[in-house]
Amino acid sequence: MARLESHRERWSHARWYVLALVVLLAGACTSRTPTAEARAKPAGGATSLPESSQPQQTASPAIPADPLPSWNAGAARDAIVAFVARVTRQDGPDFVPPSERIATFDNDGTLWSEQPMYVQLAFALDRVRDLAPKHPEWHNREPFKSVLAGDAKNALAGGEHAVAELIAATHAGVTTEEFDAIVRQWISTAHHPRYGRPYIEVVYQPMLELLAYLRANGFKTFIVSGGGADFIRPWAGDVYGIPPEQIIGSRAKLKYEVHDGVPRIERLAGVDFVDDKAGKPVGIQEQIGQRPIAAFGNSDGDFEMLEWTTSGPGPRLGMIVHHTDPTREWAYDRDSPIGTLARALDEAPKRGWIVIDMKQDWKTVYPFEQ
Amino acid sequence: MARLESHRERWSHARWYVLALVVLLAGACTSRTPTAEARAKPAGGATSLPESSQPQQTASPAIPADPLPSWNAGAARDAIVAFVARVTRQDGPDFVPPSERIATFDNDGTLWSEQPMYVQLAFALDRVRDLAPKHPEWHNREPFKSVLAGDAKNALAGGEHAVAELIAATHAGVTTEEFDAIVRQWISTAHHPRYGRPYIEVVYQPMLELLAYLRANGFKTFIVSGGGADFIRPWAGDVYGIPPEQIIGSRAKLKYEVHDGVPRIERLAGVDFVDDKAGKPVGIQEQIGQRPIAAFGNSDGDFEMLEWTTSGPGPRLGMIVHHTDPTREWAYDRDSPIGTLARALDEAPKRGWIVIDMKQDWKTVYPFEQ
Repeated sequence: MARLESHRERWSHARWYVLALVVLLAGACTSRTPTAEARAKPAGGATSLPESSQPQQTASPAIPADPLPSWNAGAARDAIVAFVARVTRQDGPDFVPPSERIATFDNDGTLWSEQPMYVQLAFALDRVRDLAPKHPEWHNREPFKSVLAGDAKNALAGGEHAVAELIAATHAGVTTEEFDAIVRQWISTAHHPRYGRPYIEVVYQPMLELLAYLRANGFKTFIVSGGGADFIRPWAGDVYGIPPEQIIGSRAKLKYEVHDGVPRIERLAGVDFVDDKAGKPVGIQEQIGQRPIAAFGNSDGDFEMLEWTTSGPGPRLGMIVHHTDPTREWAYDRDSPIGTLARALDEAPKRGWIVIDMKQDWKTVYPFEQ
Repeated sequence: MARLESHRERWSHARWYVLALVVLLAGACTSRTPTAEARAKPAGGATSLPESSQPQQTASPAIPADPLPSWNAGAARDAIVAFVARVTRQDGPDFVPPSERIATFDNDGTLWSEQPMYVQLAFALDRVRDLAPKHPEWHNREPFKSVLAGDAKNALAGGEHAVAELIAATHAGVTTEEFDAIVRQWISTAHHPRYGRPYIEVVYQPMLELLAYLRANGFKTFIVSGGGADFIRPWAGDVYGIPPEQIIGSRAKLKYEVHDGVPRIERLAGVDFVDDKAGKPVGIQEQIGQRPIAAFGNSDGDFEMLEWTTSGPGPRLGMIVHHTDPTREWAYDRDSPIGTLARALDEAPKRGWIVIDMKQDWKTVYPFEQ
């Protein structure tokens, strides 16, 4: 992954952002459930709850055994525990039946690190290089020529057309099941450039605990990502405990075809749906069919999801992961091209959204710290 | 509903079909979970299984307590029980982990009656009449003028443009939450013209039992309908035991907007996705993200869903409800414009799909017979 690092250094952040966004939006649905290849710690591992902490029937925020051990005491942790107590207290005024306990989570920057680049972008660049031996013509053809020469900046000079070619080459022209296998293979071998660990270990331990805590209290947890659902589904079961049908993301156009009697679903180069910003409530409506009561994000791309979620009647919880820890993770917000957080940060107080201060609120960031 | 009957008699089947198809394709996602207003018997009611019949660990087709009491002994029932035994036998060669036990069901003609017209079409026509007082101009404007005068045939003479206007008037121009409330209100008051009962009681008791039986054996059950997901979600929880996020259907275009600080999702007049024929495997891939191992349909519109499902490796089950009972329900297949069943019927034997002979295989058709 060192080669990615050297690329990154030569690129401006803004350039990354342009490519990252578009590559992310090329995602489409894939299939299969996770295999043992996804080597991350199962979400239930560090966070399994004693039966006594399941469906809370009391208003007390004191949990029998701490289900959120990686969270420091503070407003963020208190808000989570109080909210769960409110909606699960069967005789309380704010009881929400389990069928309506829907919680949605952004992925990049909310459940795993999105720096120094979106993981799906690292995948796309690796895939261009992996495919190059089968495409000798790429050495003489932009944008591939520049990517392979390490000059991604020049590759992107071709604008939208160049980006579309990169997407088609790395995310399309294969069946959904082939793409699933490609992602599984990549995610089981690629390593995060800073930590030298598989990407699926560079996930936030406090959020794994939160996912498990909500599920233990009768919630259904969904991912609502600007990235491709196809890229997340192959490993999200093992890593987050979230099954494929609870992953919502951007989608490529798909085509069902039968070749020599064998049916397949082909991933086309076109983008079918962009699950970002105002697309997030639409994606939620299309696939979940009801408004969540809790939503978690980290950037302005999650603004509308939090707005939609917290504008409904009854108890609502909106939370924002604020990246404030340059030592253990990264510190960035309004000036970062990746995970820009400005409007949502500014409006959080008046909207009642809780800002999670990563540095203050998280005792542990990654599972491997433990 | 007598007025619908009189309409129906004056229309040709083919005409119904044209409108029915397009109206059905106008569906979009709605929200909310079912309320007590949906008055159907909960799916678990007549079909709840004793704990001893949950996750089968033996190969024996003998179930401790009969979970399928409305099915007569025969090839169809045997196929279901044998399949469930195969995939749930943990030490068997065909064991399928629960995460991959995905079963998909068509709705119209598979879970409830689609004759004498698609229920969603009855809804659309009723809605034109209900809205007419607010639209005095409709009495002088086609296609509404003809619909209101009872001359639907003439209304459809305007072709696609007329149909688009009917869709826009009955399924669009409202928010998803408003549409949800409209469907709830309608479904709780409208009655099936033949049986004089709420439509949600004109569902197939054997299929309710099958849904519950599969779920008791660790399956996740999904609806994959050519109709609008929006039209099914408000009542499918109470009637079928299937939550909104497990309903896949055709979709209208949606738009997220904020008016005076209040966010809403508007249903637009355009069709976003047609979940029929080759669209069914695509819809499955987009929302479920993995290939089902069992699929149930009743028409050629389900052909590709069954083809996709039963072409995968390992144990697979494809079943077709064949409408063979003119006394208790209807008898129709290849010549019917609604629920046309020709190619799937012809190819069933060579593809190993089991044809359910409604007259022979079902002891009971509707719950209200009991």
